[in-house]
Amino acid sequence: MLHTTIAAIRPLDEPAMVAAGELHGRLTKPAGSLGVLEELSVRLAGLARACPPPLPEPAAVAIFAGDHGVHAQGVTPWPQEVTAQMIGNFLAGGAVVNAFARQAGASVTVVDVGVATPLPPAVPAQVNGPSGRAGNPTRPRLVAANVRPGTRDLAVTAALTRDEALAAVETGIRIARELIDAGASILLTGDMGIGNTTPAAALVAAFTGVDPAEATGRGTGVDDPTYARKIGVVRAALARHAPDPTDPLGVLAAVGGLEHAALAGLILGAAARRVPVLLDGVIAVSAALAAVAFAPDAVGALVAGHRSAEPGATVGLRHLGLDPLIDLGLRLGEGTGALLALPVVTGAVRVLHEVATFDSAGVAEK
Amino acid sequence: MLHTTIAAIRPLDEPAMVAAGELHGRLTKPAGSLGVLEELSVRLAGLARACPPPLPEPAAVAIFAGDHGVHAQGVTPWPQEVTAQMIGNFLAGGAVVNAFARQAGASVTVVDVGVATPLPPAVPAQVNGPSGRAGNPTRPRLVAANVRPGTRDLAVTAALTRDEALAAVETGIRIARELIDAGASILLTGDMGIGNTTPAAALVAAFTGVDPAEATGRGTGVDDPTYARKIGVVRAALARHAPDPTDPLGVLAAVGGLEHAALAGLILGAAARRVPVLLDGVIAVSAALAAVAFAPDAVGALVAGHRSAEPGATVGLRHLGLDPLIDLGLRLGEGTGALLALPVVTGAVRVLHEVATFDSAGVAEK
Repeated sequence: MLHTTIAAIRPLDEPAMVAAGELHGRLTKPAGSLGVLEELSVRLAGLARACPPPLPEPAAVAIFAGDHGVHAQGVTPWPQEVTAQMIGNFLAGGAVVNAFARQAGASVTVVDVGVATPLPPAVPAQVNGPSGRAGNPTRPRLVAANVRPGTRDLAVTAALTRDEALAAVETGIRIARELIDAGASILLTGDMGIGNTTPAAALVAAFTGVDPAEATGRGTGVDDPTYARKIGVVRAALARHAPDPTDPLGVLAAVGGLEHAALAGLILGAAARRVPVLLDGVIAVSAALAAVAFAPDAVGALVAGHRSAEPGATVGLRHLGLDPLIDLGLRLGEGTGALLALPVVTGAVRVLHEVATFDSAGVAEK
Repeated sequence: MLHTTIAAIRPLDEPAMVAAGELHGRLTKPAGSLGVLEELSVRLAGLARACPPPLPEPAAVAIFAGDHGVHAQGVTPWPQEVTAQMIGNFLAGGAVVNAFARQAGASVTVVDVGVATPLPPAVPAQVNGPSGRAGNPTRPRLVAANVRPGTRDLAVTAALTRDEALAAVETGIRIARELIDAGASILLTGDMGIGNTTPAAALVAAFTGVDPAEATGRGTGVDDPTYARKIGVVRAALARHAPDPTDPLGVLAAVGGLEHAALAGLILGAAARRVPVLLDGVIAVSAALAAVAFAPDAVGALVAGHRSAEPGATVGLRHLGLDPLIDLGLRLGEGTGALLALPVVTGAVRVLHEVATFDSAGVAEK
């Protein structure tokens, strides 16, 4: 599944991009006056091989959840059980991602790709109900796809076997296909996993070659001793595993997380179907580095939603050549930053669909 | 009307801001993880004197349109008739502001506060129809409030008399009241006026004291000779009129525009009703400087939507102590940048309304 997916990923389509650029020049606005939105809409035309490209509606957020053996190293003050508890919160609609998804009209799919502790008892009853199964966009859905109950401790051993990493990647590809088959025109990355900024930092350092201190941030807001310990853990893990950035499956297995691997798969699955992926924060960016290592042309499907406060996100985006759409100091994850950026993406495409030309509107040009 | 409006403007309410900050600490997210959105929602609580503050729905865009005598100085390559033609485009729903307003569910009100040339013949028939008059939010509405057919040439004489400037300011106050009485919970600034970045630059320089070259930009994208001429016009106007920044009506009369004055009034009218105003680009920022010169506490009602590519916007926002929510190189005006930022404002407030607390969701704290 991974190889056929990678083989289907193609570069952006030049004629569609040229057509979008020319259309922008005829619309009733000064040339270039929509700045980044014009470039974005041109890229999306290239991705869709169509001008105008389809409006990115409806949107689907996929939140991949997993736990992390490296939690044992004290890299975060939050108990591991919070991963499962927050899944309960997502499914009950009480998290920030739910509030933003309702506002944006996006569906929320939570994928347990590797949670270590039991999900709250209320959860299955809730999502097994008819409206949950029907894919009602107002009700979050849970997909059970647990590869293993959390990764191993990357400070001690490889986080995953190659087979486990592959299973998580292919879960992500499958979720992309299912969401697109169900009508999604854009996928938004979400994540939940206490401790998951540590493997994200290791992935960013492994794929970009920056020093671990540059790739590692304070995550949910850890104190100075924890931050120092976290950098040390990332540095030691890279020294121990010496991951080869040209072998993305090996990197994901050595120092990644199940949600990171699944997000890489989601990106590949969407890119193969020429559907854009709106990236959230550092977890998504680290997964995107893996996806682009698998298939360099996958970068054409990526839109950077926001600049996370995590430094690894900025390092990774620079490596990918992507500029984020918004920059508001968010460091929550869940998909919240991607959801805030979604109206910008939709607006950029909408201009090509709905704005009158100088000719049709009877407006003089300069 | 101006004096009673100014007298009604009060500082932000501290208890509501404290309550909003405390509520943020109980919601299921790491403290501070929503960055700028948390500060924004706290300010809006202070403005509304309530925690949570009301959701900023529905939103209303007010596009004030006017022409400029300084057009005669060759500060823009666009014909003056384009102001009136673009009003036709707004009312027909064909402009970028219309596309973004439809997406955001915002109403569009176009106010002719000083257009110099005849409006396109199709326009009156269209807006006098029952659905136009009914204030249907999907159909833009035209308000006829022409103070005079364009300003005088500020390079030669004062752009407006004090009475004319006052009439435009009071038109803005009246529009704010009408929109709020009709249910709007947030007002977005829009503008249309060929040549209007020249008076905006003069206003920014007059109120902030920066050199005209720092406050003047390329507007719709003028070439080097036009840009140099534009800076020269602004510099000469400031030298000729020597406007006193503590006399905002005098500044607006000397070097302003009718849409700038009306936008200042809109801000004052909204601030007096404790309703937020989401600023668009440099025209709005120059008007905000005037509004805050009338009533310093009006700044509490202001949210900077975006960082316009026009340098005067950045100069003015710095003076106001406001950081823009998005920064995408837009330089279109019309209200487009404010509309793109609206979901961020709504999302910031929505969090305080809809997100579960750690207690209620059964999620452990660190």
